[in-house]
Amino acid sequence: MTVEQFADRHIGPGPDDERRMVEAVGYGSIDELMDAAIPEVIRWHGTLDLPAPATEREAIAELRALASRNTVAVSMIGLGYHGTETPAVIRRNVLENPAWYTAYTPYQPEISQGRLEALLNFQTMVTDLTGLATANASMLDEATAAAEAMTLARRASKSRSTVYVVDADALPQTVAVLCGRAEPLGIEVRVVDLAVEELPAEFFGLHLQYPGASGLVRDHAPLVAAAHAVGALVTVAADLLALTLLRAPGRIGVDIAAGTTQRFGVPMGFGGPHAGYLAVRAGLERMLPGRLVGVSRDAAGEPAYRLALQTREQHIRREKATSNICTAQVLLAVMAGMYAVYHGPDGLRRIADRTRGMALRLAAGLRAGGVEVADGVFFDTVTAAVPGRARQVVAAARERGVNLRLVDADRVGVSCDETTTGEHLAVVWEAFGVDPVVGDVQEAVPAGLARDTGFLTHPVFRSHHSETAMLRYLRRLADFDYALDRGMIPLGSCTMKLNATTEMEPVTWPEFAHLHPFAPPEQTAGYRELIGQLEGWLAEVTGYDAVSVQPNAGSQGELAGLLAIRAYHRDRGEAHRDVCLIPSSAHGTNAASAVMAGMRVVVVGCDADGNVDPVDLDAKIDKHRDALAAIMVTYPSTHGVYEAGIASLCAKVHDAGGQVYVDGANLNALVGFAKPGRFGADVSHLNLHKTFCIPHGGGGPGVGPVAVREHLAPYLPGDPTGERTAGSAAIAAARYGSAGILPIPWAYLRMMGAAGLARATGVAVLAANYVAVRLRDHFPVLYAGNKGLVAHECILDLRPLTKATGVSVDDVAKRLIDYGFHAPTMSFPVAGTLMVEPTESEDLAELDRFCDAMIAIRAEIDKVASGEWPAGDNPLSNAPHTAAMVSGDEWPHPYPRSVGAYPAGVDRVGKYWPPVRRVDGAYGDRNLMCSCPAPEAFQD
Amino acid sequence: MTVEQFADRHIGPGPDDERRMVEAVGYGSIDELMDAAIPEVIRWHGTLDLPAPATEREAIAELRALASRNTVAVSMIGLGYHGTETPAVIRRNVLENPAWYTAYTPYQPEISQGRLEALLNFQTMVTDLTGLATANASMLDEATAAAEAMTLARRASKSRSTVYVVDADALPQTVAVLCGRAEPLGIEVRVVDLAVEELPAEFFGLHLQYPGASGLVRDHAPLVAAAHAVGALVTVAADLLALTLLRAPGRIGVDIAAGTTQRFGVPMGFGGPHAGYLAVRAGLERMLPGRLVGVSRDAAGEPAYRLALQTREQHIRREKATSNICTAQVLLAVMAGMYAVYHGPDGLRRIADRTRGMALRLAAGLRAGGVEVADGVFFDTVTAAVPGRARQVVAAARERGVNLRLVDADRVGVSCDETTTGEHLAVVWEAFGVDPVVGDVQEAVPAGLARDTGFLTHPVFRSHHSETAMLRYLRRLADFDYALDRGMIPLGSCTMKLNATTEMEPVTWPEFAHLHPFAPPEQTAGYRELIGQLEGWLAEVTGYDAVSVQPNAGSQGELAGLLAIRAYHRDRGEAHRDVCLIPSSAHGTNAASAVMAGMRVVVVGCDADGNVDPVDLDAKIDKHRDALAAIMVTYPSTHGVYEAGIASLCAKVHDAGGQVYVDGANLNALVGFAKPGRFGADVSHLNLHKTFCIPHGGGGPGVGPVAVREHLAPYLPGDPTGERTAGSAAIAAARYGSAGILPIPWAYLRMMGAAGLARATGVAVLAANYVAVRLRDHFPVLYAGNKGLVAHECILDLRPLTKATGVSVDDVAKRLIDYGFHAPTMSFPVAGTLMVEPTESEDLAELDRFCDAMIAIRAEIDKVASGEWPAGDNPLSNAPHTAAMVSGDEWPHPYPRSVGAYPAGVDRVGKYWPPVRRVDGAYGDRNLMCSCPAPEAFQD
Repeated sequence: MTVEQFADRHIGPGPDDERRMVEAVGYGSIDELMDAAIPEVIRWHGTLDLPAPATEREAIAELRALASRNTVAVSMIGLGYHGTETPAVIRRNVLENPAWYTAYTPYQPEISQGRLEALLNFQTMVTDLTGLATANASMLDEATAAAEAMTLARRASKSRSTVYVVDADALPQTVAVLCGRAEPLGIEVRVVDLAVEELPAEFFGLHLQYPGASGLVRDHAPLVAAAHAVGALVTVAADLLALTLLRAPGRIGVDIAAGTTQRFGVPMGFGGPHAGYLAVRAGLERMLPGRLVGVSRDAAGEPAYRLALQTREQHIRREKATSNICTAQVLLAVMAGMYAVYHGPDGLRRIADRTRGMALRLAAGLRAGGVEVADGVFFDTVTAAVPGRARQVVAAARERGVNLRLVDADRVGVSCDETTTGEHLAVVWEAFGVDPVVGDVQEAVPAGLARDTGFLTHPVFRSHHSETAMLRYLRRLADFDYALDRGMIPLGSCTMKLNATTEMEPVTWPEFAHLHPFAPPEQTAGYRELIGQLEGWLAEVTGYDAVSVQPNAGSQGELAGLLAIRAYHRDRGEAHRDVCLIPSSAHGTNAASAVMAGMRVVVVGCDADGNVDPVDLDAKIDKHRDALAAIMVTYPSTHGVYEAGIASLCAKVHDAGGQVYVDGANLNALVGFAKPGRFGADVSHLNLHKTFCIPHGGGGPGVGPVAVREHLAPYLPGDPTGERTAGSAAIAAARYGSAGILPIPWAYLRMMGAAGLARATGVAVLAANYVAVRLRDHFPVLYAGNKGLVAHECILDLRPLTKATGVSVDDVAKRLIDYGFHAPTMSFPVAGTLMVEPTESEDLAELDRFCDAMIAIRAEIDKVASGEWPAGDNPLSNAPHTAAMVSGDEWPHPYPRSVGAYPAGVDRVGKYWPPVRRVDGAYGDRNLMCSCPAPEAFQD
Repeated sequence: MTVEQFADRHIGPGPDDERRMVEAVGYGSIDELMDAAIPEVIRWHGTLDLPAPATEREAIAELRALASRNTVAVSMIGLGYHGTETPAVIRRNVLENPAWYTAYTPYQPEISQGRLEALLNFQTMVTDLTGLATANASMLDEATAAAEAMTLARRASKSRSTVYVVDADALPQTVAVLCGRAEPLGIEVRVVDLAVEELPAEFFGLHLQYPGASGLVRDHAPLVAAAHAVGALVTVAADLLALTLLRAPGRIGVDIAAGTTQRFGVPMGFGGPHAGYLAVRAGLERMLPGRLVGVSRDAAGEPAYRLALQTREQHIRREKATSNICTAQVLLAVMAGMYAVYHGPDGLRRIADRTRGMALRLAAGLRAGGVEVADGVFFDTVTAAVPGRARQVVAAARERGVNLRLVDADRVGVSCDETTTGEHLAVVWEAFGVDPVVGDVQEAVPAGLARDTGFLTHPVFRSHHSETAMLRYLRRLADFDYALDRGMIPLGSCTMKLNATTEMEPVTWPEFAHLHPFAPPEQTAGYRELIGQLEGWLAEVTGYDAVSVQPNAGSQGELAGLLAIRAYHRDRGEAHRDVCLIPSSAHGTNAASAVMAGMRVVVVGCDADGNVDPVDLDAKIDKHRDALAAIMVTYPSTHGVYEAGIASLCAKVHDAGGQVYVDGANLNALVGFAKPGRFGADVSHLNLHKTFCIPHGGGGPGVGPVAVREHLAPYLPGDPTGERTAGSAAIAAARYGSAGILPIPWAYLRMMGAAGLARATGVAVLAANYVAVRLRDHFPVLYAGNKGLVAHECILDLRPLTKATGVSVDDVAKRLIDYGFHAPTMSFPVAGTLMVEPTESEDLAELDRFCDAMIAIRAEIDKVASGEWPAGDNPLSNAPHTAAMVSGDEWPHPYPRSVGAYPAGVDRVGKYWPPVRRVDGAYGDRNLMCSCPAPEAFQD
């Protein structure tokens, strides 16, 4: 009997649409099209070995069953992960709202003002609390933020030392990740117990934890001075909640602060995703990795936000890049920033006071019961000495539903947080075998350690404290932005397809949201089963033998994959292999990752068709044969073409002793039709936020699992809190990375099944070819493969038109906003072009709406060409048009308002209006300002 | 230690705001203000006996504990409640989206086009499937829809009979409600088993169930003809899903169709809320009760939706009203309509086919096992004969997690639905003790009964079948509308306060959403405990002794309360008491309810201060002393004033042997400060969707519990499926009415506690007085009580200005849209005025924004008065201004575009643009069109 298939909801075109599209492209069926498009040499003709597709109801039922195998205990483990209250208004209206979670990275600032403002709140929160000058728009987690701080210190320090000193009271997972990152870069991480040991004579950087993993708050001022004296930079990994009570790191001259904002309302999620942060003192801002939001102005001179200093970024700097970070944790940063907005400075301080009060009371109770508690100032965490009894105490608490930290055989750590109650303390005391009578404990933070500066003084942090006000603020910002819930985002660099509600719903279930990453295994059975299945399915889809979901972004997956290659060569006695070949068309992240993995990048040219030039490839292999570590290629290529030469490329590299890395960014063109692990690759990273439906969240979270063939499996990322073994460096702070969002790809795979996945791939390729066919008479399609077909995306070449008319890709991209679209990817991988990836989720009506808009824009360009419209004042150069502009009392332009506002085909009633006119990025870069501007800036 | 109080989030003004407001009003504190405002004679000085307030986290934890005491079994009980799949995209983006659920009734059509279109989809769905001409925008449930059909038939029939024939195969709860409604109106409900008995000779109406409660589908054509022959009208209570396969009632001349749309994606919710429906053949449309959406045009001649034929409505017709229905189940109707949009006609038919296939297979299996199954055509429900064993079979199934219907000792009913699986059938067979091997069963519906007409042919039902397309359609419609998530809705007739997310979240938990109202008690323990607590807390708040939450709207609560009074008099041998005194200021529903309760309405005048005229009151009591049944008053009065005379009014009525009904619509001005049950009233209905935070849902759902003093407790609504006892008529189809949304008021009361509730009342009264003080120099405030204070709302008198300038309340209301506001209540209770109720949830910034806008509008009116702007062409008369208007190529108006679009103080960047200009209601009433218009209507 017919059962509704999820695939029919996920895939936009219905049977009628599909028929018309196949006809337009000139084939008899999708199968025929795919046979023609995909080189037989890579084609895989099997059926994926996946469970039969579940309906949405069945998938939810299975996820509920998995969730029920997780146990939500009270977590007092600490170590950077804390219980927190996500304000319900933020959960529902940000984390569960497609207007926020389906947005793309704010590369088009005019249609991203909402999340840019939210990120500016986040940055302001971080700079205010740390007392530093500039914070970026978030990092992947605390450990990777600390690693970025280390390399930043390396670049900025004048010391020639290669030693990076890490205090022994740092979080263990941070130390693990630092070690993993340091080794390929020739940095020596030296862990020193600075409470008792001296600093070495020479070092370029120092990492301190504040408060320490033990809970203790030490005065770091002397260490900072000592480090500066030898030219070293100091990073403090600081707890932002603690900073509401403690002296800001900036007050003692700290150079860099790094950390997490998880406890600002972001669920623990068994490890992630959360927003890490990174802030620097004045003078270092242009060395910050990652995304940075700044204030600039628009064409009307009004304040407008946009990503600042993009020239730092890896996709532009390529092998000169100093970091491979190319995303942030925007959705989580928005949440954390909104948590600060909702509570305001007084509210945050109250939460911190209450948390500290609980810890003080806990310690007093333990002491009253005769348990020794580490002496000193602490914030939320107490380390208690129970010689020989630690395991027993932890077990006793666990039996009572509370997880504690087993420090070692003799010590137990207990962390309080926003959710801690007197009942929890009573359980802990009972577990320790004490039964004290303790009331509230008051104890001021000693003057030298106490906070002595204000924070969150901007009005935004005191204007939205009622739920009504907060709700409206969130709605207002969401309305500024264009996300998938409004229309197509036809990027070429990212697969912006449906993020189905059924995939999203489990993310906020308590059983997935509220687990500590270091919770005992018996409490996380459901998660581990889900992850095991997901890794297995991903291996099946890609043809690899093993998968790790630990990398919490594509960039991290790349690094993990390259580190695996590095370790493999080393273990085979070929540590000298350090050349990584990268085609000139590659995404900049590839080169940056290779550098971070200690490799030398050698670029291979492309031929006139955009394919890897076989002649140059042969030459480069010959030249570097003995040193060849790997080649990194994207498949289908970043040009959106199935290159027929891939199989011979793999063979040649293997013959030279190299490994083949296939970047999985374009996997949406392969699933069910070809498996990188079968056509010659040794390792890939996948982008679960592209092909496997994790939403982009406005620029993160992403998940970038690494998939390898058998021989590389031993080198997959290790457990950051487990024993560190050579060749399995941890790549993220938590063993399963951003586990909290893994139900999304699990549900996608579970509901699509083999046939649904293959159909999705077919329709994605069909849609790209349909767009190419409809547009090729108006804009040349730059590259094509077999029979003139593209893969899942196509490049529209605007260079001849730009040359003839001055109308730029920018003008076309901004004009598309007037037509109600997000722009395609601009000038990547080829400057002066637009790349379009329609995906399988857009139906024919939307594809046609886009093609019609592009064709209409071409006609507009012709009017500029013919001189009908002047080059400097036409609907393209003035795009996007805001409501304020087209309804102004004056209209000085040589075309009617209606042409500016309502070009052909636009839905007049439901039109999306951008809140600002074209943003002047250069102005903001010259006048860098990366925290909330004064309200006066917005006065008329 | 400080714990965050929910009340601080619910109440908009913080301490600073509060101080400034209190000062502006001229008092030293809220307490002083309340002492001055509230007559001591009614003042209650205690502290409400409620549990100490829970935090949001604690409330959620308690609700989870209650939820866990409910058991979600597989429901195959049927009887109008069926398992259904709410498409996740609809759940998240409608039911869980404040843009939909916080909207008000679409009285201001220009800012309600989204939900009006959604309701038009609903109406189109109903008319298409029933084959009738016109459907309204939904009814409260199937039983009350059937009751409205009965009274409609009474009005429309030419028969002089008082007999209403109800087929014995009707749903039992429908019969119960019909009987309850019929009695006071002098209608005799005669239940006849039309399968074996004849129709009586004379009757005015006939109610048929299609398919019957037994599951059987009979050919009703002969009955329709027979009824028509004696001048009777025929109502068919039809299952819309069955109608996708069965002949439409309209095809056999049925006059009225009534029913529920629950199984179109609306969770059962232990009884509600769901959208009932009512449709009529051509010629009866102007007799339809309830809300009706129709197509009209705006000032630019573009198509625009609005509520049609409002002159039918009870608030206008008062004691001439034929129904007291003044709301609909908009949120649920939107969901049901969207379910049809998402599935389309083919999808619905597939669901129906599959459902019927399950029932056929079930029956085949039972028969194969030797169980006798009622013969005939059926759709989803099978009635099986198991002589003497029915109880045992039902129990056996229940043990296996499946609920069946116990028809009687010998028969079991089993209903299949969209969620039925082969495993469910296996369980049922096992419970029956059979073990058949049965595959799919194909069996066409016999030609005479099979559907022979198309449905859902409008393009909207075939354009949004992918989740992406559906998501965007929902967003597009939501963006048309103004709801509480954008700004203040300063109504006076409804309390539009915060609907907190924490209150809303439990509504969609499966343990609350998926329970059948007739599930066995052991599966609903959590619900019943929650309801018991809620009823107890409501009794405490109101000072009454007993509460019933059964009435699923305020109108139903009124009727229930009046029926209790009626029964009370009757049981005391005073059945002749039938006069209900109602002040002239009363809401029209009061009079309509009195008529429905079989009472005669006698109007009592008001004095110059707007209070009940004590002289006229005495006169009317004197005149009707022996027949006096009750007085119905609203307190504070609909004029927004605490009338000091209330206590003496109560005494006088009691002295004359009458009962006092206090309409609880304005309870938000009393909670914690006065209790109607203590100051003299005998009965009240409450509006949980006003005072107790159930969101308005765009015009429903509401919940209107009835609260009574001890002597009326025996007359509270009875169980519609239980034994019918005199004096306890069921008022809704389900015992606990709209149980599914009762977690909302529960959470509100649980989190506010006594102090929070009282503070909310104080701030609500403070806010109204603050607005009155700020605006009184610009618009006279019409009525006031003690010391010139208003209660929780104030009336702004525009009549002098209108007289002087021609600027009407309509102009001001529409102009407020340009300023970014929903209009206050217009011309109620006094024509030519605006009534403003700011509520406690609006902070000072928003209150000031509103006052500033009103003051600016006053200045605009002055410009019309001075002749600076012509009377017929000014920003007021042209309001609201759409983006299309102010950005048009032509601008023929005598004021600048900027004045039209961006009046002083408006947020230019985040401005809300209405999608249409002022709607011409009269045009649409003359050219009535109540289903989706052809797309051509929207062409430029």
